[in-house]
Amino acid sequence: MSRTWNFAAGPAAMPDEVLRQAQAELLEWRDARASVMEISHRGQAFMALAAEIEADLRALAGIPPHYKVLFLQGGATLQFPLLAMNLARPGQRADYVLSGHWGDKAAREAAPYVEVHIAADARASGYAALPPRADWQLDPQAAYVHYTPNETIHGLEFHQVPQVGDVPLVADFSSSILSAPVDINRFGMIYAGAQKNIGPSGLTLVIVREDLLARATRPMAAIFRYAEHAAQDSMLNTPNTFGWYLAGLTFQWIARHGGLVAMAARNGRKADTLYAAIDGSGGFYRNPVAPGARSRMNVPFFLVDPALDGRFLAEAEEIGLLALKGHRALGGMRASLYNAMPQEGVDALVDFMCDFQRRHG
Amino acid sequence: MSRTWNFAAGPAAMPDEVLRQAQAELLEWRDARASVMEISHRGQAFMALAAEIEADLRALAGIPPHYKVLFLQGGATLQFPLLAMNLARPGQRADYVLSGHWGDKAAREAAPYVEVHIAADARASGYAALPPRADWQLDPQAAYVHYTPNETIHGLEFHQVPQVGDVPLVADFSSSILSAPVDINRFGMIYAGAQKNIGPSGLTLVIVREDLLARATRPMAAIFRYAEHAAQDSMLNTPNTFGWYLAGLTFQWIARHGGLVAMAARNGRKADTLYAAIDGSGGFYRNPVAPGARSRMNVPFFLVDPALDGRFLAEAEEIGLLALKGHRALGGMRASLYNAMPQEGVDALVDFMCDFQRRHG
Repeated sequence: MSRTWNFAAGPAAMPDEVLRQAQAELLEWRDARASVMEISHRGQAFMALAAEIEADLRALAGIPPHYKVLFLQGGATLQFPLLAMNLARPGQRADYVLSGHWGDKAAREAAPYVEVHIAADARASGYAALPPRADWQLDPQAAYVHYTPNETIHGLEFHQVPQVGDVPLVADFSSSILSAPVDINRFGMIYAGAQKNIGPSGLTLVIVREDLLARATRPMAAIFRYAEHAAQDSMLNTPNTFGWYLAGLTFQWIARHGGLVAMAARNGRKADTLYAAIDGSGGFYRNPVAPGARSRMNVPFFLVDPALDGRFLAEAEEIGLLALKGHRALGGMRASLYNAMPQEGVDALVDFMCDFQRRHG
Repeated sequence: MSRTWNFAAGPAAMPDEVLRQAQAELLEWRDARASVMEISHRGQAFMALAAEIEADLRALAGIPPHYKVLFLQGGATLQFPLLAMNLARPGQRADYVLSGHWGDKAAREAAPYVEVHIAADARASGYAALPPRADWQLDPQAAYVHYTPNETIHGLEFHQVPQVGDVPLVADFSSSILSAPVDINRFGMIYAGAQKNIGPSGLTLVIVREDLLARATRPMAAIFRYAEHAAQDSMLNTPNTFGWYLAGLTFQWIARHGGLVAMAARNGRKADTLYAAIDGSGGFYRNPVAPGARSRMNVPFFLVDPALDGRFLAEAEEIGLLALKGHRALGGMRASLYNAMPQEGVDALVDFMCDFQRRHG
């Protein structure tokens, strides 16, 4: 047994260096004489760590001072209603641009709290292309415009931040955060579950423009209010301290390996390698997404004969290419290529795909 | 540097055996060829683990089949509003019994979602005694009665489950769960943040009687609905898989060490040791709580001269007695004696207290 190439969509592979450091200091962190899991989040040591981590993230992602950074729980799914409760006043309308499963879910979960308007929907294309910007029906009075920059299941990605005028743009960046530089100033709010590019599951990152925090005027529990979390430095309640710590190790890992520009280059090369293998297979493998909308992070692909799926997965697993089974909604295969997946892993996958095709094509 | 006695209130000390096992298998869990943090929660391996953990907990705590067990996120603080949203219909009233800070917070966070009625309040006693059951103003039509079996800050504990008739009893067991046997049948719902007796922060246990799940009729996002979490085996969204795994190791540790009966005996002896030292100090140390209401888990105590507090804490830390500083609301000292704290740690604390008194008393 040994660690191999893990293409899981999330919870996903984490950098070896991060896991090895966490392992080494799991029982005794710095001079705490205890695990980082066992110390008070409000103690000096953890507060200092939290401040370091936020500073590292701000430097890495270029987060301007007028944005708050929150380390919360509940995944992106909990943010679906919370962002509507916080960014819209009751009765206000919000525009949702759907490019796959997650955007659709975000809209449905927000519906009890805001008048959801579907401004555009990739469904018409069978999720093979992004809805052209010219067709979006945006309302300049909307509370916000929500979209999903990368759709994990359908494998569609926006490679440019859309222009939406003065309405705050809100983005579920769960599956592409920190995979490439992004101009934070273009957004009202960015949020992301950690379990793909940041760390383990159970931690959620929210980056929100400070002036938007005042919008949450409806009566609600303090724990639902971003302004309260911001005022208390994400310590309104006991945070996921171990997840937060691992996120910090991951931010350092990204910085050590060249930051977001280097990640973008690596991620681009990895995706190019895999799409080239798929497109060059003469139809044995197929990815249905229009080239300009293809995700760099999640590559769904289908074998020409679905009867071979089981054998493909079994042989792949045998040689240590793990978690390639596609999402149950689509079937087929999916390879997720987050930051922690090296080029070497993608090369191993492509070699196997060529070999499999030679034997079964 | 080495691990010492950690009296933190939460996140709190975890059993050494649990941390050592987690450390050993952090990079490769069972035959996953990956960390338990890096595998899909919906994959066969993690689903099997989740089922094992639930079975272990059900056996350990004697949870009847008509109760659902949920592994959620957000801490007890997120459950404060959620339990009101789920267990009360809009406009219904709920009774809250307050014995300290956390009961009060539970009531305030529930207030936007249920008509909160304070049925009893220990404030009148300065949180030195529990409000006598005979004085509780309970409404037989209330949606539920909420109380906090153990108050972490004020150090008050109910040593019996109160009789409340047919109204479902709801209890925030965050700081005393699994510290002694409890008859689950007496409750409509039990919930607990994991970071004291179960594992790391970022995981929340909810045990809820199945018939109560149908009460959540108001419009709300699925992620707020216990019934949805139950229907999806706590996988409505990506759960905190590493926290869940550590909870499982902790349940096994408790079982290996004699189960809840043995924990109750150990915890009783530990608390007796510390209270005897406080009460036997001739007033040098003082715990203000009436003996019948004293917490076995969290022991606040005060030095006769607060000017000695800083020296007490510095000397304690010097010899490895950590995190004894009292909550900022009360000052003084607090020793938390959760399951993972052995008698040996309490003995070391008491030895130090005697020695400190000899030198400064």
